[in-house]
Amino acid sequence: MHHSVHQAPEMPHMHSPSVQEQQIDSALVAGVLAGQRRALAKTITLIESTRSDHRQRADAVLEHLMPHAGQSIRVGISGAPGVGKSTFIEALGMDLIGMGHRVAVLAIDPSSSLTGGSILGDKTRMELLSQRMEAFIRPSPARGALGGVAQQTREAMLVCEAAGFDVIIIETVGVGQSEIAAAGMTDVFVVLQLPNAGDDLQAIKKGILELADMVVYNKADIDARAADLACGQMRSALHMLRPVSKHWSVPVLQTSALSRTGIKAVWDAVLAHQAKMREVGEFDAKRQRQALSWMWALVEQGLKAQFQANAAVAQTLNATLERVANGSLSPTTAASYLLGCLQKSKTD
Amino acid sequence: MHHSVHQAPEMPHMHSPSVQEQQIDSALVAGVLAGQRRALAKTITLIESTRSDHRQRADAVLEHLMPHAGQSIRVGISGAPGVGKSTFIEALGMDLIGMGHRVAVLAIDPSSSLTGGSILGDKTRMELLSQRMEAFIRPSPARGALGGVAQQTREAMLVCEAAGFDVIIIETVGVGQSEIAAAGMTDVFVVLQLPNAGDDLQAIKKGILELADMVVYNKADIDARAADLACGQMRSALHMLRPVSKHWSVPVLQTSALSRTGIKAVWDAVLAHQAKMREVGEFDAKRQRQALSWMWALVEQGLKAQFQANAAVAQTLNATLERVANGSLSPTTAASYLLGCLQKSKTD
Repeated sequence: MHHSVHQAPEMPHMHSPSVQEQQIDSALVAGVLAGQRRALAKTITLIESTRSDHRQRADAVLEHLMPHAGQSIRVGISGAPGVGKSTFIEALGMDLIGMGHRVAVLAIDPSSSLTGGSILGDKTRMELLSQRMEAFIRPSPARGALGGVAQQTREAMLVCEAAGFDVIIIETVGVGQSEIAAAGMTDVFVVLQLPNAGDDLQAIKKGILELADMVVYNKADIDARAADLACGQMRSALHMLRPVSKHWSVPVLQTSALSRTGIKAVWDAVLAHQAKMREVGEFDAKRQRQALSWMWALVEQGLKAQFQANAAVAQTLNATLERVANGSLSPTTAASYLLGCLQKSKTD
Repeated sequence: MHHSVHQAPEMPHMHSPSVQEQQIDSALVAGVLAGQRRALAKTITLIESTRSDHRQRADAVLEHLMPHAGQSIRVGISGAPGVGKSTFIEALGMDLIGMGHRVAVLAIDPSSSLTGGSILGDKTRMELLSQRMEAFIRPSPARGALGGVAQQTREAMLVCEAAGFDVIIIETVGVGQSEIAAAGMTDVFVVLQLPNAGDDLQAIKKGILELADMVVYNKADIDARAADLACGQMRSALHMLRPVSKHWSVPVLQTSALSRTGIKAVWDAVLAHQAKMREVGEFDAKRQRQALSWMWALVEQGLKAQFQANAAVAQTLNATLERVANGSLSPTTAASYLLGCLQKSKTD
C-alpha cells in the first residue's frame, strides 16, 4: 500500500517531482509509518540534503508524517565531553527498552562539520544500545551552522516519532548555543555535570543551568563526599536563578552510569516532570511555543535570503554597507533606504 | 544661515515635508551643530516620535548630522538599583567637566514604559551635573520594547556628538538585555557592582560580566575588607570567562562615588582601554561592527513588518499558525509555504 505523497499538500512547488520520485517518496512514508529502519534512515538523509528538489520532496514527506508525530517524550541531555554522556544515554536507553519503550538518540553538535564531531553516534559508542532493534541512533548532521543542524535534528525527531519511537533523546555537547537549540525542541532538559566546582561555574556562565529541568551529577561514586558537596552547592545556585516553571522545583540527582546506579531515579524525575507539566497545562503550551518560534526563525531566515537576492537591493547593498561602516550614513537611514528599494522593486 | 535639509539625501520619501517643515528641520540641524540645547532636545524628541512623517524628517536631519557624529568616547555604565549609579555618574561627569569635556548622559531603561522608570534622569537626580551647561542629561525614551528604546538612544547619542559632546555616557539598569544593547553601542563597558557575593553571581548569571571591559566596586569604603575580598573573587571569576579582547585584561577597581574617591582611576582605565584598542585596530573595527549589526537588526525588523503586512500572507497566516500550533503542519513546511505566498504575490 502506497500513500500518494504529492497530491494532498497545498504547498506551492517550483519543480514537480517525477513519477518515479513520487513512488519513492510514497514508499518512504509507508516504510517510516511501518517502523522500517531503512526507510527511516533514508528519510532523514533526504531531510539533511541541501538540494532544493530534495527539500521539496522532504516537505511533502514530512507533511504526510506530521499527523503521526508528536507522540513521544522528548528528552534533551546536555553534558560536556568527559561527563560520561554516552555511557549515561546507553544505560538510560537500555533501561527504557527493558520497560518496553522504543528509543531514538539524535544529536546536535555544530562542531561536527569542523572537527569531525565530538558526538560520533556510531557503533563504537553505545555498543549495546546500537545493536538493539528497539533503538535508533543517528549522529549529528554534519553540515552548516547551528541553525541548519538544529533544523535537521528537529525534523529527524518528527520522523522518528512517526516511525513509532516513543522516547526521543536529543544529546548535545555543553557549549551554550547548541543547548538552547536542544532545549527549544524537547519537553524536558537534563544537564549532566561532574562533581567539581569548575564545572558548575562553566554551566552557570554559559547559561545552560537556566535551561535545566533537572541536574544530574554523573560519576558520583568516584568521590561520594565531593558529589554531596557539589549537589548542595548546586541547589543553592539554582535557588538564585529564575525557575524554568513556577510549578517545578529542579531536582539535583546523582548517578553512576558506568555501574548503572541512579538511572531509574532520573527517569522517574522525567516522568514526574511530564505529569506535572501536563497537569498545569504547560506541556502543550511549551510544544506550541516551540513549533511557532521555530517557524518564525525560518521565516526570518528566508526573508533575509529573499532580501539579499533582490536585484534592486543587491545593486546598492555594498555601497550602503560601506557608508554605514565608515560612519557617513546612519544605520537607521540605511535600513529604511534598503527596505524602500525592496518595496519599490516589488511594485514596479 | 539655514542648511537645506531635504535636498541632499537620496533616500526615497513617501510624503514630502512641507516648506515650513523643511525650514524647521534646517534650523534644527544648524542649532544642533551650533551646540544649542533647545535644538538638541527638539531633535531627540523628533527621533523619539513614532509618527512616520516625523521618522522621515528625523532621517533627513540625521543624514546631515552624521558627518559630525562619532567624535566622542562612548561609555556604557551598568549597575543594578542601589549600586549608586547616579552618584557615580555625577561624580565622573563633574570630574570630566573639570577636565574640559562636555558630557551627555543618556539612558536605556526598557522598564520605564511600564513602571515610570527606575532611571529618571530628571533634575532631582545628578543635581550638580544637571545644572551645568557642559552637561546634557536625557531620560530613557519611555516608549515600546527594548529594540525601539535602544534605537532611539543610539540616535540620540549621534545627535549629542554632532552637538559637540565629546563624552557620551549610556547608563543602563543591570537586567541583562538592556546591557547587551548598551554594550552594543559603546566603546567601553563599565559594570558597577556592590561588594557582596550575591551581586557577583547575579552579574555572572545574567551574562553581564562577559560584556565588561572593567568592573568597579562602588561603596567600597563602607567595608574595606569585604571590598578587597569581592575584588579578589571577581578577578578569579573573570579569569574563567572568555576575555572581551585578547589585548585587554579587565581591571577590577574600587570607588566611593559619595566621597568621590577612585573616580579618576576609572577614567584613566577608560583612556587606557581606548588607547590600547586604537593601537591594535579594534576601536574602529568595533564601531563598524556595531553600526552594521545595528543596520541588519533594523532590516530584519522591517522585513518582518513587510511580511506581515503582505495581503497574500495575511490571508493565510492565522490558519497556518493554527496548524503549526496544533502539530498538523511542520514549522519548516509552514515557513516555506508562507515565504512562497510572499514571493508569489510579488510576481503577480
